[in-house]
Amino acid sequence: MTHSETAASAPVELDLAGDVALLTEQLINIASVSDDERPLADAVEAALAALPHLTVHRDGDSLVARTELGRPERIILAGHLDTVPLPTSEGSRGTVPASWTADERGDVLYGRGATDMKGGVAVQLALAAALADPNRDVTYVFYDHEEVEGYKSGLGRLYRNAPELLGGDFAILLEPTNGTVEGGCNGTIRFRVTTHGRAAHSARAWMGENAVHGMADVLTRLAVHRPVTVDVDGLAYRESLNAVRISGGIAGNVIPDHCEVEINYRFAPDKGPDDAEAYVRALLPGYELERTDAAAGARPGLTHPAAAAFVATVGQEPKPKYGWTDVSRFSEAGVPAVNFGPGDALLAHTDDEHVPAQAVRDCYSALHRWLTAPA
Amino acid sequence: MTHSETAASAPVELDLAGDVALLTEQLINIASVSDDERPLADAVEAALAALPHLTVHRDGDSLVARTELGRPERIILAGHLDTVPLPTSEGSRGTVPASWTADERGDVLYGRGATDMKGGVAVQLALAAALADPNRDVTYVFYDHEEVEGYKSGLGRLYRNAPELLGGDFAILLEPTNGTVEGGCNGTIRFRVTTHGRAAHSARAWMGENAVHGMADVLTRLAVHRPVTVDVDGLAYRESLNAVRISGGIAGNVIPDHCEVEINYRFAPDKGPDDAEAYVRALLPGYELERTDAAAGARPGLTHPAAAAFVATVGQEPKPKYGWTDVSRFSEAGVPAVNFGPGDALLAHTDDEHVPAQAVRDCYSALHRWLTAPA
Repeated sequence: MTHSETAASAPVELDLAGDVALLTEQLINIASVSDDERPLADAVEAALAALPHLTVHRDGDSLVARTELGRPERIILAGHLDTVPLPTSEGSRGTVPASWTADERGDVLYGRGATDMKGGVAVQLALAAALADPNRDVTYVFYDHEEVEGYKSGLGRLYRNAPELLGGDFAILLEPTNGTVEGGCNGTIRFRVTTHGRAAHSARAWMGENAVHGMADVLTRLAVHRPVTVDVDGLAYRESLNAVRISGGIAGNVIPDHCEVEINYRFAPDKGPDDAEAYVRALLPGYELERTDAAAGARPGLTHPAAAAFVATVGQEPKPKYGWTDVSRFSEAGVPAVNFGPGDALLAHTDDEHVPAQAVRDCYSALHRWLTAPA
Repeated sequence: MTHSETAASAPVELDLAGDVALLTEQLINIASVSDDERPLADAVEAALAALPHLTVHRDGDSLVARTELGRPERIILAGHLDTVPLPTSEGSRGTVPASWTADERGDVLYGRGATDMKGGVAVQLALAAALADPNRDVTYVFYDHEEVEGYKSGLGRLYRNAPELLGGDFAILLEPTNGTVEGGCNGTIRFRVTTHGRAAHSARAWMGENAVHGMADVLTRLAVHRPVTVDVDGLAYRESLNAVRISGGIAGNVIPDHCEVEINYRFAPDKGPDDAEAYVRALLPGYELERTDAAAGARPGLTHPAAAAFVATVGQEPKPKYGWTDVSRFSEAGVPAVNFGPGDALLAHTDDEHVPAQAVRDCYSALHRWLTAPA
């Protein structure tokens, strides 16, 4: 066996007992762009298998590790192992390997996944190691393929293959929220709006009908539309409705016979996808509208006692989550869920993605406090 | 030398003395999509070189053949050798080789270039052979690269390389006009209109600015605009102004930071390109507008005595030409020019391009009559 074969087959040994920020660095340095999660999943599996208080289940590159203490409540801590691709601009620091800088926030860790979401995964792993006897049963979920098309989601696959492992009273997704609790999420739905015309030579335009001109009214309706903010379970969900793409036209001397606009509506979790569709159809009456994609939102679920206790421990006012996250998969399965994780979501996917070490440590401490407090 | 080498190097022998409709078929069968005009130019050169009453000049794949009879007037008969690409839809008949059908119009010739413009080129060639002693000196111009970007035009190149060969009192371009005289042509000018926004995740649209929404007003102004019809030298030029292409947007979850619309304005020949630009800028005040392309139109030039005599011979009311054609190159060089050729311009570039045999013969007869009538 050659050295490189050894390196490829033996999982990296993760240090779960040390500084959770250093563990984050270790996780970043095992590159795991979607489709290439295996080496990281192997390392996580090896680390979990060494913890006698957990039962571990692997499904593809996803892992579920559970305490089985017979507690009256079970909570889920979930995070995805994959990242978006490495940055391609020279000098980008949100890459692999990770690097450190010190600034007014203290030590700051740069690297792909620093915020989205290897800091969160490090917190999960450190808790898994530290909490041999938590006050609630805990299910740790690590999954693949979150940063790609929804049908590839490792969490979705787990729900199909082993739903019995995912039962619980309350779920926390460790997506970056800057350490505040972000409840639920907006839903998202997309449409293709098409106008049709009749091609003609642009020198004899009156023999044709211009499909791009036919889109003027659609764009005007979108431009003047003022999205509402909706209160759901005490959180204010701000909606948005946008043309995200437009294309039309055949050549510089032909009247366009066809124009398409893609619309994305982010709707508050008081509505389902069908309500959202009815809303957009009413806004664009008479237009050819095709629904191309939809994902339900999630109500914040903060009324559940476990959630309320958690919010009280964190001690900050919860906020709504605007972007769609996997909390809605838990929500659909009947498990209230919130986002709570280290790092600034606005840095996710950026070329200089980074997270302050202290943010990762604070997230760990908050969850540790909540899961060890006397019942 | 192999058989295929013989076929590639010896030009096809054209029969200029027979039926001009059969000559059209011969010309169609020498495919000459822009950039591949050589075999046809070779065949035309060989046919012209066999006519002792003409002096022949070749420039790339363009040819100029002239009588030198010392007549007081010289007229130009011009046509392009190239065609647009062959149709790709199965069953299309506007292709190579040509084919014949008989209908209520008599024999109809289908093939690529049937109308645009191998019928016209056949008429030029048949006249070149028949008119050893015309009543006016005649310059026959055959040129390459008309169906592509203007800077590639073989006629433009001839004007740069050998302008002395292109002098004359009146020019006829044998583009398809259904056998009527179409005077002058509209000009054409193109602009790129750009709107800028600020990218943001579409779940937090309020952090961005939507450049596609920013185009709503531009499209509305174009959609409600009513183009005028302008009388120039007695002919009514109908204008048109259109968005011919639009594109914008980055991804299905990003607020577009950029949107572009390409506008094409076809303007009457009472205006130059600068007037046309001022007109469009006034219509879209404050927008980022870049002029990307322009070609002047041409006044009809029917007041010249040679033109008037020609119109009288044809015996039909002249019409305006809406599309831009190379008459404007002659017009710019000070030579009044009209379009007069066989076939329906609306069939040009179509999958089933065709021309009635009689239309080609009638065009030939009209020009032959005019150029042999006693002065």
